[in-house]
Amino acid sequence: MTQTSLGTLYGLGIGPGDPELITLKALRHLQAAPVVAFPAGLKGQLGVAQRAIASWISPQQRQLPLSFPYVQNQAELESAWQQAAHQVWGYLQQGQDVAFASEGDISFYSTFTYLAQTLQHLYPQSQIEAVPGVCSPLAAAAALGIPLTIQAQKLAVLPALYAPTQITQALAWADVIVLMKVSSVYAAVWSILQTHQLLERSFIVENATRSDQVIYAGLSQYRDLKLPYFSLLIVQVKPT
Amino acid sequence: MTQTSLGTLYGLGIGPGDPELITLKALRHLQAAPVVAFPAGLKGQLGVAQRAIASWISPQQRQLPLSFPYVQNQAELESAWQQAAHQVWGYLQQGQDVAFASEGDISFYSTFTYLAQTLQHLYPQSQIEAVPGVCSPLAAAAALGIPLTIQAQKLAVLPALYAPTQITQALAWADVIVLMKVSSVYAAVWSILQTHQLLERSFIVENATRSDQVIYAGLSQYRDLKLPYFSLLIVQVKPT
Repeated sequence: MTQTSLGTLYGLGIGPGDPELITLKALRHLQAAPVVAFPAGLKGQLGVAQRAIASWISPQQRQLPLSFPYVQNQAELESAWQQAAHQVWGYLQQGQDVAFASEGDISFYSTFTYLAQTLQHLYPQSQIEAVPGVCSPLAAAAALGIPLTIQAQKLAVLPALYAPTQITQALAWADVIVLMKVSSVYAAVWSILQTHQLLERSFIVENATRSDQVIYAGLSQYRDLKLPYFSLLIVQVKPT
Repeated sequence: MTQTSLGTLYGLGIGPGDPELITLKALRHLQAAPVVAFPAGLKGQLGVAQRAIASWISPQQRQLPLSFPYVQNQAELESAWQQAAHQVWGYLQQGQDVAFASEGDISFYSTFTYLAQTLQHLYPQSQIEAVPGVCSPLAAAAALGIPLTIQAQKLAVLPALYAPTQITQALAWADVIVLMKVSSVYAAVWSILQTHQLLERSFIVENATRSDQVIYAGLSQYRDLKLPYFSLLIVQVKPT
């Protein structure tokens, strides 16, 4: 009985954008894999992960951009995940490892989750290994020079898709709140923070750790910000 | 007018324990600093950070263990932070950089916060730079092979010091809950999870990414666990 040994899919959290915020472990797997996959950029631009790993990979490695559309339609999403999984499987079944580079961490609101789950579903024999990375809230706090959480503080993290009522609930419960990808709902969030007199206890970091990073410490003067997609808001709800 | 230029205090998140989960940036600052500080271990044992960096530092670097007692007494804590800040300042004022290595991330329930704030208070001219690291919830999720959060999920993180009512509130609000350093309250937590029929949606990781890492996926059979200090519990409150 002979069989080609399968390759392994490595999910690598490569950090928030600064290429130097990759871990040694992720870098080792990234450079050892014959195939390097990453989320394809939008509109012909390079994706965040692709840019962050550019200086670490070699021309001998095959680059595999995978398309994950920014849509809410579940059928369209699943179709994209399946196509990506098929593409990855094509290499794994030939015994080639595939390193999937994901911005931030691979377990924290990451595209890698869908790729891994779809691959596992379609090809249960798949071997998958995950390497954690620095996620953007940690990078934002470091850039701001503030603690994210201390002592007995309770932290709430909300992603982009939420209603104002959920923010209000979080304000009642948490000591610190992180709103991920806040750009599309910023106007509503600003009003809520104003109502709760929290504007001066709020911070925004755009594109944390990247060359185009921008910081706002205190938001009273910034009612009408036009924020980029990777913008994150931290609210220190209660005094420390 | 002549003056010695001041050294910089670098707060380095060196990751959850696996030495390879340090970032390239933290490693660069760690190896460049003439003085390497870290939280002193308890009872003569090496601390987590000290062990994780052992293979990265050289005999030429001065090692500076700083004592941070595990107590609730605020006066005792502040006295320890002040003493640590004085020790660090002794090197900074001579123009020597000090790299403070902290397990996990430096903004996320980290001793570094107190050191940095105390130093800034005592010596406002201090130069401090923070480098984020991989925190333990991300490492635990990767070890478990599960996503921590996906899509629109709301995440609640609670530290060790909390009351059962706060856990119940978090269960009502969040989709995913992380309980940090759960060992001292595990019996009460287990009962709450049982009441909410969440034991089989709960996971524990002891000493994530270290050689003594232990995983429990589903807790029905584990009512009476004796957990070590670095134990973390993840509850997937709602189906994904």
